[in-house]
Amino acid sequence: MKAAIFVEPGKMVTRELPKPKVEFPTDAVIRIVRACVCGSDLWWYRGIAKRPANEPVGHEAIGVVESVGDAVTDVEPGDFVIVPFTHGCGHCAACLAGFDGDCLTFKHQGSPVGYQAEYLRYENANWALVKVPGQPSDYTDEQLNDLLALADVMATGYHAAKSAEVHRGDTVVVMGDGAVGLSGVLSAKLLGAKRIIAMSRHEDRQAVAREFGATDIVPERGDEAVAKVMALTNGSGADAVLECVGNEQSVATAVQVGRPGAIVGRVGIPQKPEMNTNDLFWRNIGLRGGIAAVTTHDRGGLLQAVLNGEIHPGKVFTKRFDLDHIQDAYAAMDQRTAIKSLLIVSE
Amino acid sequence: MKAAIFVEPGKMVTRELPKPKVEFPTDAVIRIVRACVCGSDLWWYRGIAKRPANEPVGHEAIGVVESVGDAVTDVEPGDFVIVPFTHGCGHCAACLAGFDGDCLTFKHQGSPVGYQAEYLRYENANWALVKVPGQPSDYTDEQLNDLLALADVMATGYHAAKSAEVHRGDTVVVMGDGAVGLSGVLSAKLLGAKRIIAMSRHEDRQAVAREFGATDIVPERGDEAVAKVMALTNGSGADAVLECVGNEQSVATAVQVGRPGAIVGRVGIPQKPEMNTNDLFWRNIGLRGGIAAVTTHDRGGLLQAVLNGEIHPGKVFTKRFDLDHIQDAYAAMDQRTAIKSLLIVSE
Repeated sequence: MKAAIFVEPGKMVTRELPKPKVEFPTDAVIRIVRACVCGSDLWWYRGIAKRPANEPVGHEAIGVVESVGDAVTDVEPGDFVIVPFTHGCGHCAACLAGFDGDCLTFKHQGSPVGYQAEYLRYENANWALVKVPGQPSDYTDEQLNDLLALADVMATGYHAAKSAEVHRGDTVVVMGDGAVGLSGVLSAKLLGAKRIIAMSRHEDRQAVAREFGATDIVPERGDEAVAKVMALTNGSGADAVLECVGNEQSVATAVQVGRPGAIVGRVGIPQKPEMNTNDLFWRNIGLRGGIAAVTTHDRGGLLQAVLNGEIHPGKVFTKRFDLDHIQDAYAAMDQRTAIKSLLIVSE
Repeated sequence: MKAAIFVEPGKMVTRELPKPKVEFPTDAVIRIVRACVCGSDLWWYRGIAKRPANEPVGHEAIGVVESVGDAVTDVEPGDFVIVPFTHGCGHCAACLAGFDGDCLTFKHQGSPVGYQAEYLRYENANWALVKVPGQPSDYTDEQLNDLLALADVMATGYHAAKSAEVHRGDTVVVMGDGAVGLSGVLSAKLLGAKRIIAMSRHEDRQAVAREFGATDIVPERGDEAVAKVMALTNGSGADAVLECVGNEQSVATAVQVGRPGAIVGRVGIPQKPEMNTNDLFWRNIGLRGGIAAVTTHDRGGLLQAVLNGEIHPGKVFTKRFDLDHIQDAYAAMDQRTAIKSLLIVSE
């Protein structure tokens, strides 16, 4: 089968690999229909994070179950599924509390896995895979993209919004206009936010932010951005803040733009984890978030909202490629000519 | 009038000062019935924090309104009130959201104020003072102590529990066995926690913790404390954590004893505000808390729970003094012969 392979920073290729097999009783093998490239893939593509070379990559897909291990009873061959990057067991204290991205029982084992491929071996398939009614052919191109977004990016934006405890009627600030930040805007809207201030300085992303529900756009950064949000909120600050970047400036700004008691819901991987928590304490600002709980959020409302046509998170895919053009798919995101690159793998 | 005066670290005296007057239209002058010494007063008593010498001190009391400024309409002379250390306006974004300890409009002005005295000038009296039905003489000695605890310590413990989002049935860890930590235990119980693990190594405090609802006592600290909590929770960690100390070790332990998704509700003033937030992010541990919202919490249920006899937060007062023995009141807390020192000021 074809699989995307990371060769070295800046260089992706497609290679033929043996088709994956069930290796453990809890595995499922999935035929991939669509996959995509994540902003976090750029960390190792750009050489900022280390990653072993010559291994398959990618962690977002939709597909059809091809075969399952003996212990898998929740899905069967032929099922159309969202393939989360998470692998919750569904019964540990973390999964039961709705944090399946931090499942206490799951540990990767067996061969390396990459979702940017024709097939993948999915671990802990029993509870974690999210079944979609019908077959891929029952859905439009747009719907397939919306479903694909539920494998990570939309669930992650939603995790920021849930972590920030966005309530109906709230004023919400969203830091970051990448695919996750835009999904955060859409999530805030879905949760009933009345006013959504998107921090964005790119015109193409501002347009998607507005389409997703942003009522105000703030292109400033740092102290100027804080001043702008304060001016927009009568000097009070926002009720909730979504931090979808992770760098020091974005986190520092996020902490300053909330009103006392606001929570910063963060999903941007912290690039400078040391921070002065006095800035939180003296204004009762909360800090929550981390790895998204994909299965929990998909089953908890996102899948239904996509099936109803209430949300169209797939609009973050602004360019499409096939596996043979994997280098172009990465380059488009690296050079910001795409918000997020879609990979069409099979029908 | 008599007032407690801070002379220098380790030295308190009682002096005659002019009786306070209304200085601004939003002031009320209160005749103090009971006051007390706070663990945070020990910071400057011990010389760890700076404080101007020869000024009145204290920030917790109950009393009767003596006179009010022209703008005060919510209380009138003769009203029996809890006198919070906070001064919320009741109408800014912070107060409306339930964080009146971070009121956006309040600023101290006029003469210095100390609650360990026969009278005090209370600023922003209009919304912030908490009226108690009847007169002090209508209450028992125990009830008066319970009401006094609502001026700070119980509201602060409750703020930790609310910040940690304690839910019915939860397993809760409480870091700290001072008066605030013990109030945190009582608050967790009031909010329906099923299991309350109190971190305490002092027998007198363990006894109060058990009386307040602690089901388990962990005297260990650091890694051993984490291991003990994990053993008590089948390796999962607690659903909520209350941090009522503020030092580096306590905060570090608090972050480790929660299950994924747990929130550390903290009211201990951070002694080392720099922390590595990776420990939060990768396990979705939340960090909330800060200055308590006294008026909000008192009106939101604490006052009623005291009036019903449902809770007895005044049990944290284990020694009593009069203003003439203010030095002894501080020394008792400094030397840990009292959990919290009560001051009987007037009938």
